[in-house]
Amino acid sequence: MKATICRVGYFNAAHRLHVKEWSDEQNKIIFGKCNNQNYHGHNYQLTVKVSGEIDKTTGYIIDTKLLKDIIKTEVEDKYDHKNLNLDVSDFFSLNPTAENIAVIIYNNIKKQLPTNLQLTIILHETERNFVEYSEQ
Amino acid sequence: MKATICRVGYFNAAHRLHVKEWSDEQNKIIFGKCNNQNYHGHNYQLTVKVSGEIDKTTGYIIDTKLLKDIIKTEVEDKYDHKNLNLDVSDFFSLNPTAENIAVIIYNNIKKQLPTNLQLTIILHETERNFVEYSEQ
Amino acid sequence: MKATICRVGYFNAAHRLHVKEWSDEQNKIIFGKCNNQNYHGHNYQLTVKVSGEIDKTTGYIIDTKLLKDIIKTEVEDKYDHKNLNLDVSDFFSLNPTAENIAVIIYNNIKKQLPTNLQLTIILHETERNFVEYSEQ
Amino acid sequence: MKATICRVGYFNAAHRLHVKEWSDEQNKIIFGKCNNQNYHGHNYQLTVKVSGEIDKTTGYIIDTKLLKDIIKTEVEDKYDHKNLNLDVSDFFSLNPTAENIAVIIYNNIKKQLPTNLQLTIILHETERNFVEYSEQ
Amino acid sequence: MKATICRVGYFNAAHRLHVKEWSDEQNKIIFGKCNNQNYHGHNYQLTVKVSGEIDKTTGYIIDTKLLKDIIKTEVEDKYDHKNLNLDVSDFFSLNPTAENIAVIIYNNIKKQLPTNLQLTIILHETERNFVEYSEQ
Amino acid sequence: MKATICRVGYFNAAHRLHVKEWSDEQNKIIFGKCNNQNYHGHNYQLTVKVSGEIDKTTGYIIDTKLLKDIIKTEVEDKYDHKNLNLDVSDFFSLNPTAENIAVIIYNNIKKQLPTNLQLTIILHETERNFVEYSEQ
Repeated sequence: MKATICRVGYFNAAHRLHVKEWSDEQNKIIFGKCNNQNYHGHNYQLTVKVSGEIDKTTGYIIDTKLLKDIIKTEVEDKYDHKNLNLDVSDFFSLNPTAENIAVIIYNNIKKQLPTNLQLTIILHETERNFVEYSEQ
Repeated sequence: MKATICRVGYFNAAHRLHVKEWSDEQNKIIFGKCNNQNYHGHNYQLTVKVSGEIDKTTGYIIDTKLLKDIIKTEVEDKYDHKNLNLDVSDFFSLNPTAENIAVIIYNNIKKQLPTNLQLTIILHETERNFVEYSEQ
Repeated sequence: MKATICRVGYFNAAHRLHVKEWSDEQNKIIFGKCNNQNYHGHNYQLTVKVSGEIDKTTGYIIDTKLLKDIIKTEVEDKYDHKNLNLDVSDFFSLNPTAENIAVIIYNNIKKQLPTNLQLTIILHETERNFVEYSEQ
Repeated sequence: MKATICRVGYFNAAHRLHVKEWSDEQNKIIFGKCNNQNYHGHNYQLTVKVSGEIDKTTGYIIDTKLLKDIIKTEVEDKYDHKNLNLDVSDFFSLNPTAENIAVIIYNNIKKQLPTNLQLTIILHETERNFVEYSEQ
Repeated sequence: MKATICRVGYFNAAHRLHVKEWSDEQNKIIFGKCNNQNYHGHNYQLTVKVSGEIDKTTGYIIDTKLLKDIIKTEVEDKYDHKNLNLDVSDFFSLNPTAENIAVIIYNNIKKQLPTNLQLTIILHETERNFVEYSEQ
Repeated sequence: MKATICRVGYFNAAHRLHVKEWSDEQNKIIFGKCNNQNYHGHNYQLTVKVSGEIDKTTGYIIDTKLLKDIIKTEVEDKYDHKNLNLDVSDFFSLNPTAENIAVIIYNNIKKQLPTNLQLTIILHETERNFVEYSEQ
């Protein structure tokens, strides 16, 4: 059996898809309007899913208040109302696609969790575009 | 290949997180405002996911009308507009965390399903907090 | 022209519909399962709408951070994770229907707003039931 | 690790559940009001999930613009504002249950994807009824 | 002051936009793919808003259970899993645009309400298209 | 009676709240993290509501396809995947608060509508913050 507790958070950020090693023309062809040099932005919705044993006494996998605090410290405080390319060192040399943002969030949250818990990240860039990143 | 049919139901209930073996102080520390002695409540959203073969003739895994009836009998009739701690025997001696409610619902619905079908339960306590419980 | 700024908040509470002057039988007939003596509960969603002039310099009707603080102080701190009938003095002698909760919230928030601003309250008890209360 | 990019599309269609080999009475018993001879309809919501490696340079699993185009060509252009039973050859001899529609969409989109990418289809017939179909 | 109680219902129906007095070509020009002769369909979401005095004793404008029953009898029983053009006499000679459906629903519900209550109808044809119809 | 047809659109943009006549300190005090010099962003959701007579023949107030085109030309083509402060001349000297964006959109769409139709704009900056702007 597999039990998973999930907590949702949010951050509103500017970003631009851009590969520094490419010409402006190449960036325009691949990333289109997402390459706009003055940035655009999103309301990112983050779902953090943590799987493990349900504690016999508390009935918790992990306290969602703790999960909420980890999301605040590791994600919202760093990314909310920021420019991902300019303000967040994670993306100074990494293209902030939804995929890459999800991987970085996964790595940052994973470090804060007990090692016996499995982690899945879902990141909505819009209601129509989202990414999942998980341990299988 | 894996095919899954899903049906959503709802119940509005009061509950309180509380471990009887603990002191009031210990309960307060662990469960915070969820421990309020006069209870609080939620609009619970339940998603029941059933996996199996698609019937060649009907095109159904299982008729969603049947699934709807099972959800009504096993969950909504028992939990809707109830106090989970005081009115529902499942939680007289089990702390009604989202995790534990999902496990109990899983067990109750599982008994009503043909044995060749796999079951997953998703229970939203709020839009930001939810639980998944499944056979892997 | 009419400009309105809106801010959404949430509180999760237990309640029971009950008129003290009535017999148990009469309460049962009128309020049905909402009269359950052990309470039930909801995730209430509150939308506060404030209408007025847009300030020429700031571009604000009212700062939503201020609106967020008023909602926290006047509503969420008082009602969240509470039993409306037992824990909130506003409803010791007032039946906590969605209509009455909206009126009380209106009155409490109205006192905190500059007098030149008009107020509308929308209160969702569930996704299918909600109430609006406003100055016309 | 498993990375998945997801894109949502929509189509509004009429359909009728009906097995041609059965009598009218048998169809009525099994499919109830979904068997209405003059059809009924839904706003179908389609989520296409594609799993694979994240490209080191672009940060993409697959460009969502490409995914959007595949959904348009393979699903929306064929099904939107159509009668699935009468206008779409996929369902001339296949009962258009949510399960069967998901399988057909899976097969049609799968052909357009690079073979190293895994595919999952989620199809919402209503907010309360949906189907998942995937490679495990 | 204005108090309003609101209740949401649903119906899934097929329809076709078509003016009988016009040529096929004219219908095609004006209604485009909505004119498809074999129909298409929607999950219609209906919000019924009723304004009036809050009863001093019950705390109700009108009991939402009564409102739910009126929506079931006047709308869902007549329209759900139906073809609006072929199965519903209201639209035998009236084009079933969202506007016209809302007007008909308004008229049918209005007859069932106490005359001192004001009525507003909101009808969502999709999440992106909806209609409001009200007494001012 | 009042009939209204509504159409929803979207644009994803970066922006920064900033009053050029003020010092950096004053901007920081009033706009907080919304003043971040490198911008942040949102998925803006726009609802355009148009009120008028329902045409006796077509059953339309205004064709939603026309409304969709106006939203595309006047809003989405200008604002989507743009930096409102740097890329959109409407906000070169106007602070892009939700209120001000709604007013500008109102003015731009109003010019494209027949004069007998009334217009209301609803602009969601996030699910929790939104603005309405209308003729009364």
